[in-house]
Amino acid sequence: MPPTTIITMLLFSKARSLLNPATRHLSRHFTAGTTPLSSRIVIAVGGNALQRRGERLTIENMLKAAADMAPTIAALAKEHEVVLTHGNGPQVGELALERSAATFDVLGAESMGQIGYVLAQALSSAGCPSTPLLCQVVVDGQHEAFKDPTKFVGPIYGAKEATALSQSLGWVMKPDGEYFRRVVPSPPPMEILQVDAIKTLLEHCPQTLPIACGGGGIPVQRVPSNPRTLIGVEAVIDKDACGAKLATELEADGFIILTDGGGIWQNYGKPDAREMKRASPEYLLGTKAGKNFPGSMGPKIQAAIDFVSNSKKKGVWAAIGDLKDAAKIFNNEEGTVVREDVEEGVVWREKKSSASSGPSKQSKEPHKSG
Amino acid sequence: MPPTTIITMLLFSKARSLLNPATRHLSRHFTAGTTPLSSRIVIAVGGNALQRRGERLTIENMLKAAADMAPTIAALAKEHEVVLTHGNGPQVGELALERSAATFDVLGAESMGQIGYVLAQALSSAGCPSTPLLCQVVVDGQHEAFKDPTKFVGPIYGAKEATALSQSLGWVMKPDGEYFRRVVPSPPPMEILQVDAIKTLLEHCPQTLPIACGGGGIPVQRVPSNPRTLIGVEAVIDKDACGAKLATELEADGFIILTDGGGIWQNYGKPDAREMKRASPEYLLGTKAGKNFPGSMGPKIQAAIDFVSNSKKKGVWAAIGDLKDAAKIFNNEEGTVVREDVEEGVVWREKKSSASSGPSKQSKEPHKSG
Repeated sequence: MPPTTIITMLLFSKARSLLNPATRHLSRHFTAGTTPLSSRIVIAVGGNALQRRGERLTIENMLKAAADMAPTIAALAKEHEVVLTHGNGPQVGELALERSAATFDVLGAESMGQIGYVLAQALSSAGCPSTPLLCQVVVDGQHEAFKDPTKFVGPIYGAKEATALSQSLGWVMKPDGEYFRRVVPSPPPMEILQVDAIKTLLEHCPQTLPIACGGGGIPVQRVPSNPRTLIGVEAVIDKDACGAKLATELEADGFIILTDGGGIWQNYGKPDAREMKRASPEYLLGTKAGKNFPGSMGPKIQAAIDFVSNSKKKGVWAAIGDLKDAAKIFNNEEGTVVREDVEEGVVWREKKSSASSGPSKQSKEPHKSG
Repeated sequence: MPPTTIITMLLFSKARSLLNPATRHLSRHFTAGTTPLSSRIVIAVGGNALQRRGERLTIENMLKAAADMAPTIAALAKEHEVVLTHGNGPQVGELALERSAATFDVLGAESMGQIGYVLAQALSSAGCPSTPLLCQVVVDGQHEAFKDPTKFVGPIYGAKEATALSQSLGWVMKPDGEYFRRVVPSPPPMEILQVDAIKTLLEHCPQTLPIACGGGGIPVQRVPSNPRTLIGVEAVIDKDACGAKLATELEADGFIILTDGGGIWQNYGKPDAREMKRASPEYLLGTKAGKNFPGSMGPKIQAAIDFVSNSKKKGVWAAIGDLKDAAKIFNNEEGTVVREDVEEGVVWREKKSSASSGPSKQSKEPHKSG
């Protein structure tokens, strides 16, 4: 077992044995020597995590999906300082259909209210009180992202519908698999205005789990002539990009991106597919930051790299893995961990039923994935 | 000048001279002798405060109204620990029209997102960073309020429209002046689940103003067989009732309800109309808690009484007054202050242009208003 995994697991089991609800308030803030008893973790779940495949996006279905997820988050929150963030792609798209006159800053704020409530309700039932905070996130109104909208929002359409919507409502539509979806600009987050409040809750109110920067935060820009004046922006910030920024600002130890499709794979879906167990930012950048990865994995990989590369704290890690595996991702039993100190850049996960190539050979291969 | 006013004004001017932004963080938490340098105040603004009379309820108009109000709140927040709460009657009603399938717990959460964002945007521009928190508020699902809905939501309708809506959608409609409006149940708030988080921000994050319990909070009830499990409730909690509960839980010194119509008046609109300067809960209860007062003043008076009567802290006060007079309400120059120690139960405000009856005679009259 590689040393990094041992360290993480020790830390985890130490926290488990020493912390209990009655003493958690105190123990979070005391350290044995220089080893913190618990870690500060930002966990990001997708807007899709609240919509099971094939189910309609109703509040009832969202509550059910949240109820499935809540015990996992609650268990991690018992051991660690956890901030939960979430996407809003499907939800903000639905709201946009029902409230066609509203702009995406306002729809984002409303979706945060909606999703924050659903998550808080589910977490409470799992014994984990939480506090959703509305976060304004400053973006650069002149960013090139506004020239090329890329963020999918709302439902899928056929080609004819997509053309009609584009012509009648001026929506920008792009292909998503074999269908089309509306896209809006997705500029990078520059400043999270409520970050002090989130930090304060982590440090002084351990009995509640902050839910923050939902949907990537409400996109606002500063008026150049009067920078404290904020105006809303017609955009949706990527929730993983914002989660990485949040984790950096909070000086988190870890940033976990939960997906509905496991960690980072090479040749996903093909016979020779293999999953990374650990990878360094440098290695991943060699794969063009996941541009070769399917679907929405690219932005997730970029967000993991951003956090690990930008954090001022030493030894931080990001992880990408399946929602159902959250606890196992934490100690690298499942999913992919991204950190600076990975031997030869990448370690592949042993195939569960493979005879063709041994795991020891795989783990020595510093090849680019793609 | 009566002694209570002098005390308040001294406190106010002392705070003003001693506190400045650079030292505010520290000075809030230190006291000179036993006199606190600043007070903890909950301020409630109506959902109507974000909709000027005669204007359409658009985000643009809400932002304008919020921009008018923000400097007043920002000025108070410089001197005191302020929590802002707000109504959502007009907004949640509009959302309900656009999203007819959604229940009022979800609509409440969404309106909190919307209004919290509008307020945060306006406050930021007034130099007052803020943090809107989503609050779940527990109610008794068996409360009699569910049998007799009383809370107005959404726009006004003529009699025929009202009847049609009642028959087609099952809405309960009640007269509001000469028009009709939809009403929903408004049970009293029993427990504010995020109160620890709000308190923590007040005490440990003075650079941000918490915006909390918007729209009276998201109404939820506990499942009797498993009390930590929460389910949403089809209701809208009165924002003043929730503000009173919040002020009580936070052990606030004061609770200010800002209106668009001044303080508590007797014979409002008539030639002999007069406004209370100060009144005791006992005196106001003699007026049947404002049942004789026009429009929505009754619940505001009840909320003021509730806070002053239920607070465990000594010497607390509530005040009702016009939004534009917020600073003057604080030192009782305008509006009505409710507190236990009012000589003979009520002190009337001197009429600004009156010769018929002198103020000294008025201030001795312990008559019931009505």
